[in-house]
Amino acid sequence: MGRPLKELTPVSTVIDRFSRLLPTPSIVSKKVMESIGNYSVEEVRAIEDVPPVPKAVLDGFAVSSENIIDASETSPVVLEISESCETGAIPVSTGSPIPKGCDTVIPIEGVKVEGNKVMIFRPYPPGNAIARVGEDLSKGDIILRKGEFIRPWHIAALLSQGITKVRVIQPKIAIAATGSELVEPWESGGVRNTTAWLVYTFLKEKLGVEPNYFGIIPDDKERIREYYEKALKNHDIIITTGGSSVGKKDYSVEAILSLEPEEFVHGVALTPGRPLGLGFKEGKFLISLSGYPVAALSELEAVVWEIFKRAWGLREPPKPRLKVKLTRRLPVQPNMVHLYRMKVFRCSEGYCAEPLRLTGSGVISSLIKGNAIFIAGLRGETGYDEGDEIEVILLSEPID
Amino acid sequence: MGRPLKELTPVSTVIDRFSRLLPTPSIVSKKVMESIGNYSVEEVRAIEDVPPVPKAVLDGFAVSSENIIDASETSPVVLEISESCETGAIPVSTGSPIPKGCDTVIPIEGVKVEGNKVMIFRPYPPGNAIARVGEDLSKGDIILRKGEFIRPWHIAALLSQGITKVRVIQPKIAIAATGSELVEPWESGGVRNTTAWLVYTFLKEKLGVEPNYFGIIPDDKERIREYYEKALKNHDIIITTGGSSVGKKDYSVEAILSLEPEEFVHGVALTPGRPLGLGFKEGKFLISLSGYPVAALSELEAVVWEIFKRAWGLREPPKPRLKVKLTRRLPVQPNMVHLYRMKVFRCSEGYCAEPLRLTGSGVISSLIKGNAIFIAGLRGETGYDEGDEIEVILLSEPID
Repeated sequence: MGRPLKELTPVSTVIDRFSRLLPTPSIVSKKVMESIGNYSVEEVRAIEDVPPVPKAVLDGFAVSSENIIDASETSPVVLEISESCETGAIPVSTGSPIPKGCDTVIPIEGVKVEGNKVMIFRPYPPGNAIARVGEDLSKGDIILRKGEFIRPWHIAALLSQGITKVRVIQPKIAIAATGSELVEPWESGGVRNTTAWLVYTFLKEKLGVEPNYFGIIPDDKERIREYYEKALKNHDIIITTGGSSVGKKDYSVEAILSLEPEEFVHGVALTPGRPLGLGFKEGKFLISLSGYPVAALSELEAVVWEIFKRAWGLREPPKPRLKVKLTRRLPVQPNMVHLYRMKVFRCSEGYCAEPLRLTGSGVISSLIKGNAIFIAGLRGETGYDEGDEIEVILLSEPID
Repeated sequence: MGRPLKELTPVSTVIDRFSRLLPTPSIVSKKVMESIGNYSVEEVRAIEDVPPVPKAVLDGFAVSSENIIDASETSPVVLEISESCETGAIPVSTGSPIPKGCDTVIPIEGVKVEGNKVMIFRPYPPGNAIARVGEDLSKGDIILRKGEFIRPWHIAALLSQGITKVRVIQPKIAIAATGSELVEPWESGGVRNTTAWLVYTFLKEKLGVEPNYFGIIPDDKERIREYYEKALKNHDIIITTGGSSVGKKDYSVEAILSLEPEEFVHGVALTPGRPLGLGFKEGKFLISLSGYPVAALSELEAVVWEIFKRAWGLREPPKPRLKVKLTRRLPVQPNMVHLYRMKVFRCSEGYCAEPLRLTGSGVISSLIKGNAIFIAGLRGETGYDEGDEIEVILLSEPID
C-alpha cells in the first residue's frame, strides 16, 4: 500500500541543497532582436560612447553662445541663416551632429524666422539642447547584468552599440507524463493528461524556452527509468508528472532512486505538493512532480523555480504584488509552506482577500475562480488571523 | 523649416477617438498548448463536468460511512480489505473513482493495516476526501473570459475539457524605420536603427506576435507612402518610426495625410512623445512613432497600447506596481502626460523614488539606469511635491 510521507524536508532546505548543486544550464547565442524574454548569461557593457559626437536634442538653430549674449525681447540679435556659426545660425534637426564652432542650440519655437534671418530674443548658455558625447551610454556602462531578463530597452541599448548577438540561458528540458490511466487531451478513452501541459507551458512562460515533450509513459518503473536514462543524455532537466503520490504508484521516485542519484529528496513540507521528488545526478536535475495540476504548480512555483533562480542567478522581473486584508484565519501547519489560492476584491479597507475553500490538489479551477496566490509560511509563520495584512501575488486584476 | 506642434491633443482624447474606431484585428485558431501569452478572442466555457465521476482526493480506503459509525481509539472497527464496501474496505489511490456502495474515503495515515485487515479508529462523515462530480469545473463554468491573457492554468483547464484549440487575437503588424541616415545595427556607416527594433520587441512581448519588419526607408514622402499603401493590404496595424519630428522631416505624417485617412491626429500632449501621428483608414491603423527610442516607448505605452487594450478588450495581466515617496518635485505641464523614468530604492519610509534628470528622448540608458517608470498627469494632476506618495510601475526589483 506504499508508505505515508512522514519525513518532510522543509522547502528552504530543499532549495539550499539543490541550488548549490545545479550547474549553469545550456547556453545559446541568439540574435539580440530574438532574445526578448530570455535571461542573459553574463554581464554586457557598452563598447562605444552614445552619442559618439555632440548632437542636437531638438529642432532649431545651432549658434555660438557668445554671439547672442546681448539678445533680449526688446533688442533681439539677428543672425543670418548660414553654414557657419562664426557669425551666422545653422539649422539643425533633432539628432543632427553639432557643427564645428557652434556650442548651443536654440529651439525653433524660441526664434522668429524672416527670410534668410533668424531673430533671437534671449541669450542661451553653452550646451543648451545638446546631447554630450556618451550622455546616453559611456564606454563601460552596464547594459545587461548577469541573469538579466531581457526587455525591449535592453535590445535598443545593445543594438545602439552594434552588439547584435547575446548569450542567453536556454536549459534543455524533457517532460513526460506518467500514468496508465492517461490519454492526451485530443484523444478519448481515459483520463486526460493536463498536468504535463501545465508544466510545459509554465516553463515556456517563465524561461522563454520550448521543453521537449516525451509523451505518456505507463505506470511501470522500468519504462520510467528508461525515459530518465534516455533524456539524461541530452537534457539539463528531466521531469515527470504523476507517479510521485504517497500511494502505491511511487514509480517515478523509485526510478530516480534506481539511478543512484548523488542527492535525493522525496517529500517536501509543502501543501499542495508534498510528494515532490528531486534527484541530482552527473550535473543533471531529475524532477518527479505531482500528477495533480495545482500540486504540480505549487511544486514548480515554490521549489523548482526558486532552485533555478538561485542556481542560475536569474533576475526575474518583479511580480505584481498587492497588500490585502485577510477576511478569515489562514492556518499554517508547523514548518509547512502552503500555496493558497485567493479571491482579491476592493473593500472599505482597500483590498481584501478571501482564501478559497478547497479540497484536493486537482482543483485547477481555483486558479481561474481566484485571482491571486499567497505562499504562506515561508518565514516560519504559524498562521494568519482574520484582518492581518498579507502580500499576495496577483494573477489577474482585483475585483472592483 | 516645419512648424512647431502648437495644437497638442490630450492623451485621453486620442485614446477615446481611436479605440472607438479600431475593429477586431486578425484572429487565429491555435493549439491550446501553443497559446500561452496570447489573448483569447472570446469567452470559453466548460462543456463537461470535471471530475465526471466522484473521485478519491487522497490515498486510502473507500468504505461505507455507516459501517464505521462506532469506531473509536479504544474500540476500532476492523474491516476486511475487499472489493466491496458492503462489509469491507476498498483500497483507493488519489484520483481513483469511488466504487459503488462506498461513500467516504479514509486516508492511509488514519488506519492501521494488518495483513488483510484495516483498523479504523474514528468515524468519517459521508463525502470525506471525495471530489464531487463537477467540483473542479461544472458544465457552463467560465474558463476564459473575452480578452483573457492565457496562462498555464487556463491551458490545463481547457485541456481537462478536451478543448484543444483556442481562438486568439493575432494582429498583423507591419513596422518600418524611416531615416536616410539610418543603417541596421549589424551594418556600418550610419546611425544605427534601434527604435524600430524597440517597437518590434515591445509588441512581441506584449502581444505574443511577431511583427512583419519592412526595413529602412529613406526620408522620402513618396517612398514612405508606398510602404503604407503596400502594407495596408494585408496588415491591421502599420507603423513607422522616425519622420514624425516637429522639424523638417514630417514625411511619415505627411504620407499618412496623403492617404486621406478618416481620422487623423498629429501632436499629442505627451512628453516625451509629442510628435506622435495616428491615422485610421479602411479599418486599418496607421502609426507614425518618434525615431527616438524613449519617445517611441512613451507613445507606445501611454497611447498606442491603451488604444489596443480598450478597442480589443484585452485583460492585460496586472503590472508590478509599488507605492513610493518622491524625493523631489515632479513638474507636470498643464494637460500634459509625462513619462518619467525613476530610480526606486529602499528608504526609511519604505520605498523612495528619484526621478532621473534627463535631456532628450533618445536616452535609452535611462530605462536601464532606472528601475521604474511613472506616468504623470494621467488624471489632470498639475505636479507632485517632494514627499508625495505615487505609484510607479517597476521594471526591475527596487534597490535594497
